[in-house]
Amino acid sequence: MPLSHQDIEARLTAYIDAFNSGSADAVADLFAPDGLLEDPVGGATARGREEIVAFYAGTMGMGAKLTLNAPITSAADTGAFAFYATVGDMRIDVIELQHFNADGKITHMKAYFSNENMHKIGA
Amino acid sequence: MPLSHQDIEARLTAYIDAFNSGSADAVADLFAPDGLLEDPVGGATARGREEIVAFYAGTMGMGAKLTLNAPITSAADTGAFAFYATVGDMRIDVIELQHFNADGKITHMKAYFSNENMHKIGA
Repeated sequence: MPLSHQDIEARLTAYIDAFNSGSADAVADLFAPDGLLEDPVGGATARGREEIVAFYAGTMGMGAKLTLNAPITSAADTGAFAFYATVGDMRIDVIELQHFNADGKITHMKAYFSNENMHKIGA
Repeated sequence: MPLSHQDIEARLTAYIDAFNSGSADAVADLFAPDGLLEDPVGGATARGREEIVAFYAGTMGMGAKLTLNAPITSAADTGAFAFYATVGDMRIDVIELQHFNADGKITHMKAYFSNENMHKIGA
């Protein structure tokens, strides 16, 4: 049975909460074993649990926190959300897609942002 | 030369303005000749100018207007934005990707929203 919108919304909310808890393992638990992330698309990639844990441990180590910026949407097996990450005195605006398998695990995550989406807070 | 973030931001802004002007032709001008739209992903599709004009004429005929809901982001050849469409007394929250070719024309547009992203305004 395909995931419902509510299923996908719950998974994206769990992702944000796991990220903000600072546990790279908790975030990696949300991915399929061979899950792929592109963050940003065209830039860094990580595939499989070991790489994914290392990726999130790195961003969490910089103190990054995520804040949802618009309603979560979904279509078919995909969830989409706009958020901003704060890292020190920087704000990064991001739009992210997460594709899910039938088990509700992330098979492919794609984060869309560029250098021009990074701003010094208060500047 | 790949499009810059500023190029992509200008194109997405032009798309929203063209949509809100009510000209399906002006929106179709932003697409490549063989451009594809999926709106929503997993639902309606249109490919090529004739189908794209007909699609937008249909949504514009319902009186839909678009309002940006979060900063426009980009990565590689892709722009991403969160917006809501108002149609009568309904609000539809959408996250949309637009992939561009080197000429700055849309080759593939993907709109992500579900029935659960539609809300009666004020309800």
